[in-house]
Amino acid sequence: MIEERIRTEGKKGTWMTYRPDVKVLDCTIRDGGLVNNFNFEDRFVKAVYNACVEAGVDYMEMGYKASKKIFARDGLGVWKFCDEEDIRKIIGDNDTELKISVMADAERTDYHVDILPRNQSVIDMVRVATYVHQIPTAVDMIKDAHDKGYETTINIMAASQLKESDLDEALEILSQTEVDVIYVVDSFGSMYSEDIQDLTAKYLGYAEAVGKKVGIHAHNNQQLAYANTIEAIIRGTSFVDATIAGLGRGAGNCPMELILGFLKNPKFHLRPILECIQNSFPELRKSCNWGFDIPYMLTGQLNQHPRTAISFLSNNRSDYTNFYDSIVNGD
Amino acid sequence: MIEERIRTEGKKGTWMTYRPDVKVLDCTIRDGGLVNNFNFEDRFVKAVYNACVEAGVDYMEMGYKASKKIFARDGLGVWKFCDEEDIRKIIGDNDTELKISVMADAERTDYHVDILPRNQSVIDMVRVATYVHQIPTAVDMIKDAHDKGYETTINIMAASQLKESDLDEALEILSQTEVDVIYVVDSFGSMYSEDIQDLTAKYLGYAEAVGKKVGIHAHNNQQLAYANTIEAIIRGTSFVDATIAGLGRGAGNCPMELILGFLKNPKFHLRPILECIQNSFPELRKSCNWGFDIPYMLTGQLNQHPRTAISFLSNNRSDYTNFYDSIVNGD
Repeated sequence: MIEERIRTEGKKGTWMTYRPDVKVLDCTIRDGGLVNNFNFEDRFVKAVYNACVEAGVDYMEMGYKASKKIFARDGLGVWKFCDEEDIRKIIGDNDTELKISVMADAERTDYHVDILPRNQSVIDMVRVATYVHQIPTAVDMIKDAHDKGYETTINIMAASQLKESDLDEALEILSQTEVDVIYVVDSFGSMYSEDIQDLTAKYLGYAEAVGKKVGIHAHNNQQLAYANTIEAIIRGTSFVDATIAGLGRGAGNCPMELILGFLKNPKFHLRPILECIQNSFPELRKSCNWGFDIPYMLTGQLNQHPRTAISFLSNNRSDYTNFYDSIVNGD
Repeated sequence: MIEERIRTEGKKGTWMTYRPDVKVLDCTIRDGGLVNNFNFEDRFVKAVYNACVEAGVDYMEMGYKASKKIFARDGLGVWKFCDEEDIRKIIGDNDTELKISVMADAERTDYHVDILPRNQSVIDMVRVATYVHQIPTAVDMIKDAHDKGYETTINIMAASQLKESDLDEALEILSQTEVDVIYVVDSFGSMYSEDIQDLTAKYLGYAEAVGKKVGIHAHNNQQLAYANTIEAIIRGTSFVDATIAGLGRGAGNCPMELILGFLKNPKFHLRPILECIQNSFPELRKSCNWGFDIPYMLTGQLNQHPRTAISFLSNNRSDYTNFYDSIVNGD
């Protein structure tokens, strides 16, 4: 039955085996930093790091490499900038199997200066996030990071709002770069399983032809982050983003505890993640709000940026019908 | 692209059309009653009823028809028993398009006595819930309800733990009864999309041959209730269970607000559901706990009944690693 399905639907992997190529990337601090302006206690970041090491997670993303010319330090925690000394303060020389990544937004990163040569840094991977109109900058950022010695990935943001022809052109260009992984990103938490199937097949078509991998970064606006992540894996995705307790902007991300409970590779261990949730998250929950809520559901259903929902909920409002009316009937 | 997928994967339905055969059944009070021993305020039940009527929901399940010989009234609200006068107290003669259902557990219902002839009742549908070893009783209950004039459905509980040959035999027997709908039930919230695909195809194979429909009742232990419900619909399921705000035992059910935001039939309206959540659920949340939590995730991942998780959380515990150790390493 399973064999047949693989043949007829192009699926990859079965229940009792595992794909060793599937890598898990923790972006708890990076995506979670969008909830609290990156103001994490050092001990929290250290707890996430320890949990990732013990759980067999492949990569941990420490934060952004944001431009200090554009973003003032005031009010923003160090993980918005990920200076080398701030990372080393937590992880030392990172003498572990866990690799370290940072995210660099196109047009918001002084990458020539702020991204050090690989041999001067504890960072292993630079992940470039780009909107489709910023592709030329992204391409240069990939080249810069690659030439400095880093593994690289590219996240094409807001893919759910792109014309297919624009997306094809972006993928055509990116497939000619040095980038190692191209990510399907569900920025608005609006994608259904069919979208994941179509986009994964499309991205894989470009990526596999030139020896690259495909990744998935999902949001939970419609309670589909985990389901979509699994679907992406089934369809051949090999880089998987997740966050502990689903911490992340708005409705949050694919929960690490769900994905590690799903993956069969014996290198992964769920218990350290549960320990981290148990010991380090109760305090965070007092000051941070994230996770599924009606306004995020509505922006997800309408394929909109969650900013209106974030604003609504930041005022502790629960007059959902007013929010519904404003986004359904608003001009 | 969509045409092709329908052809190659046996899917049914497209993005911009809808299937008028898809019926939505609200079981907020029935499954939610498992959280609070059916002790709902009348005004809450009335609010759910009004929301279902206004939202275009097809069926509302008021509760169980439990045996008064087995279950003492003490501590149990009226929706455990669904006496005719208690239902009518809320909905009168139900002069609406919304149909009313009750659930009757095999071997826990005095169905000959407690289920009245259809012409004496405001109930439209009797839903029989059965474990596979109770099938003969369930068959008799279906006949009894059908002969009295009701629509009927059958829920085969704990299907995720059944041998395929036993499930086949149960479906063979049930397909020869008068039952209108056979439900795929994910009692433990343990199913993945592949399980939904396989079971839906299996159930449809038996059901469609004799003019019956297939339903889906999902639980949210792994945050897959909505995803699995959509998958079931895509694969040809036409009866869909959901609860407002996902209210239901343990991790709860497929949220009504998600499914009504997904279905394209213009008869469905999301706003009345949001209004009900906004106005009637804040008070309920003070006394009832339901929804995704780590212990439910773990029992779901291990395909176990959630009773250990419910017990753990009822004591306000959050020492997840102890729970994990107890169910992973326990004898």
